[in-house]
Amino acid sequence: MNNAMIRYILGQVLRIEGILMLLPCIVAVIYREKEGFVILGVAALCFFLGTLATIRKPKSHVFYLKEGCVATALSWIIMSIFGSLPFYLTGTAPTFVDAMFETISGFTTTGSSILTDVEAVSRSVNFWRCFTHWIGGMGVLVFLLAVIPLSGGSHINLMRAESPGPSVGKLVPKIKYTARILYIIYIGLTLVQIILLLIGHMPLYDALTITFGTAGTGGFAIKSDSIAGYSSYLQWVITIFMILFGVNFNAYYLILFRKFKKAVEIEEVRYYFLVIAAATAFITWSLCNTAMGFAEALKHAAFQVASIITTTGFATVDFNYWSGSCQTILVLLMFIGACAGSTGGGIKVSRFVLLIKTVKKELNSYIHPKSIKKIKVDGKPVEHEVVRSTNVYFITFMILFVLSVFLVSLEGKDLVTTFTAVATAINNVGPGLALVGPMENFAHLSDLSKVVLMFDMLAGRLELFPLLILFHPSLWKDAFHQKVRKTKRATAR
Amino acid sequence: MNNAMIRYILGQVLRIEGILMLLPCIVAVIYREKEGFVILGVAALCFFLGTLATIRKPKSHVFYLKEGCVATALSWIIMSIFGSLPFYLTGTAPTFVDAMFETISGFTTTGSSILTDVEAVSRSVNFWRCFTHWIGGMGVLVFLLAVIPLSGGSHINLMRAESPGPSVGKLVPKIKYTARILYIIYIGLTLVQIILLLIGHMPLYDALTITFGTAGTGGFAIKSDSIAGYSSYLQWVITIFMILFGVNFNAYYLILFRKFKKAVEIEEVRYYFLVIAAATAFITWSLCNTAMGFAEALKHAAFQVASIITTTGFATVDFNYWSGSCQTILVLLMFIGACAGSTGGGIKVSRFVLLIKTVKKELNSYIHPKSIKKIKVDGKPVEHEVVRSTNVYFITFMILFVLSVFLVSLEGKDLVTTFTAVATAINNVGPGLALVGPMENFAHLSDLSKVVLMFDMLAGRLELFPLLILFHPSLWKDAFHQKVRKTKRATAR
Repeated sequence: MNNAMIRYILGQVLRIEGILMLLPCIVAVIYREKEGFVILGVAALCFFLGTLATIRKPKSHVFYLKEGCVATALSWIIMSIFGSLPFYLTGTAPTFVDAMFETISGFTTTGSSILTDVEAVSRSVNFWRCFTHWIGGMGVLVFLLAVIPLSGGSHINLMRAESPGPSVGKLVPKIKYTARILYIIYIGLTLVQIILLLIGHMPLYDALTITFGTAGTGGFAIKSDSIAGYSSYLQWVITIFMILFGVNFNAYYLILFRKFKKAVEIEEVRYYFLVIAAATAFITWSLCNTAMGFAEALKHAAFQVASIITTTGFATVDFNYWSGSCQTILVLLMFIGACAGSTGGGIKVSRFVLLIKTVKKELNSYIHPKSIKKIKVDGKPVEHEVVRSTNVYFITFMILFVLSVFLVSLEGKDLVTTFTAVATAINNVGPGLALVGPMENFAHLSDLSKVVLMFDMLAGRLELFPLLILFHPSLWKDAFHQKVRKTKRATAR
Repeated sequence: MNNAMIRYILGQVLRIEGILMLLPCIVAVIYREKEGFVILGVAALCFFLGTLATIRKPKSHVFYLKEGCVATALSWIIMSIFGSLPFYLTGTAPTFVDAMFETISGFTTTGSSILTDVEAVSRSVNFWRCFTHWIGGMGVLVFLLAVIPLSGGSHINLMRAESPGPSVGKLVPKIKYTARILYIIYIGLTLVQIILLLIGHMPLYDALTITFGTAGTGGFAIKSDSIAGYSSYLQWVITIFMILFGVNFNAYYLILFRKFKKAVEIEEVRYYFLVIAAATAFITWSLCNTAMGFAEALKHAAFQVASIITTTGFATVDFNYWSGSCQTILVLLMFIGACAGSTGGGIKVSRFVLLIKTVKKELNSYIHPKSIKKIKVDGKPVEHEVVRSTNVYFITFMILFVLSVFLVSLEGKDLVTTFTAVATAINNVGPGLALVGPMENFAHLSDLSKVVLMFDMLAGRLELFPLLILFHPSLWKDAFHQKVRKTKRATAR
């Protein structure tokens, strides 16, 4: 394993984190909050340690998928450890586990919170909290690839490990430009949303923090009632932008280059809108039955559906009080998730499209055993390997889900709380049902449950395998053997 | 499609059902119940219609997997329709949907009941109700293969469609003898259990009906409190036999032929016992914490674990009052299910063994991308096709599960009821949690939910695809085209 290269990447990530932390420092200056000094200190520490780790450039640029996964997983873990210091040191989070939970929930764009009174948090710390969503949304390694020249090596593996979806489409041959284009679209959409919120008379601070949560599909709110207190106009703007950030960014790239027809033909995006429309229609109808006006019902239905399927997690109502069928739909939407190549979580629409086509093909094979038709998506046949790995992904996901449900059940909460707490964590949504509902928080869970949920959040965001292989004994055996070989070679000299 | 052959098989199945219905008639004679006349009438009807359908023997014996699936699915549906008549005509079930629910629950060895007062049911009808478990356990088509000479054709396809598990192992080259051996083991174990129950002073009627439920891993009880009222000895006998009927029958075959070493080496069986031991230990420990004595706790834990993992569904306690973690374990056990090649339901231990090995292999491939090791079970490499179809099976299972949960949620019951009602149906267990708990019943569900659950029970018992392809448009298109071709040929002459 190319340990030097991994060290170098981790260093760069830390440096970037240090620089990004200066933003909340500026907020602290504006609002004259003494928490700013703490954040500045942490930022300096990040930058210093990061620089220390990057002084010596790695000799070898050999970089396989394995290294890509390990570098990505470790980056996210280290980022979270240092990112949690502002919460811990300012006393915003009562314990270090809580601080880590909040940070991982932020970076993975989950949005589950352990804060019992979010409005009591200082503005600069809360800014950092919401900003983690924006950083985690498109991914810090994609950012790294966009700004830092990593010559040689197959750095697509970094992107592959961090980007959501069954297969990574390079938009352009050069990975560096792909990363840049992604960030340009991301920043562009972010700016448009901020402007539209400001037009609706939202205060600048609110507009920024809420847009971070929308763009990253995170869902940390700065008010106890999430988004319920804002005007209908603002709620609709947020609804629309949540949906937009859940779209496969390939579509925006195609639109940017005026390939409208191709953009409209992406199957995944069409199914994504279809599911949103169907779920919204059903819930609107269901809410109308409870004596709510149509416009009001549509607004709430659309907002909650958009929030859950994109795995953002904002709320305008407490859907803990909705009917069983509406709640079931929301739980199903959690698992479906947004499009691949978006900032959203979940299993992803494209994977479900593939899974359903796999089942259809299997049924066909019973009737026409000799048929050898390949599965097609967007009119093109799908590689057997993509189908296989999608199947395995789904299976791994379910096994991890089930194990987590068991571990969280140990603390003896009711089944709905246990089940939805894990579902919301592994899909990076935010709120669950019952005791972890949209107007509740995660503070009351035991430390064991919090650790399990943290693991699930990271596993969900990094699409399982990059995190899981960290626990593969053979990885460490390899790294160890390498060390031994090196030492032997050194002694031989 | 070979329609004549399918008609012939359906006719034979009806004839067998008619003959088997004579058993409850004998019970009616003993207890002098007038319901016996109704059952006798239905039996005569079955035999008459069956004979009518089998007078003309099919010319062609060509019989593919497709035909095997269709014949099996239709057999089970027709068997259920006629099997439900005793319940409907005697007024035991208030509506035809309820009668069908009870019968399908019986044949599929689920054991969910719509009866609100099971002790009020006449003895002969209740005998038929419990006997459906025994018939469905090993399968009526396997029985057919054992007793009726179906010359030519690849009748393994019938067995493949009806037998549980990822791959059908013929015990001996001739399918007829395989079927006979299976039934001999089945009848042998049944007799031993009846004798052991009689030794424990259980009345003969109870011993017979409860053994039918145990052998088929069904779970219909003849008392309102299921098995709670019997002595500890009897409960332990039932516990052990539930576990025995959940073992892969291949193991018994090997033991019968004194290949003990080979029998002990079956991986699936070892994991099956491991899971039972672990779950029992955990629940025993958990129950001891609630001030229950160790012996009592062990008895209840072992009984409920055996009952749920083998998907029998008997109960000695109302586990609706158990802790969240114990309930979570039970729900997980429902999905795991018994061994392939047993009479139990669920996804099957062997499939989970394969799924977990698939995930392990995928993790390995990240670290050693060039490794081409095959997955091994019982020391032998597993065919790629078996792995693939197991993956697809799991995916199809989950998709059907999710769709069913949605449909059942429409009636607005709580999430736990909805979720466990579907889980218990599709895995052929019997009881769920909350409103469908072990001491409750399914009478209060809507007709839509009942139909969905019936579908799930059949799909679970027939391992999805044989039932699902009945709904494949291309199957009917083929059958229709064939008709058209035939008519054309006839007119041409």
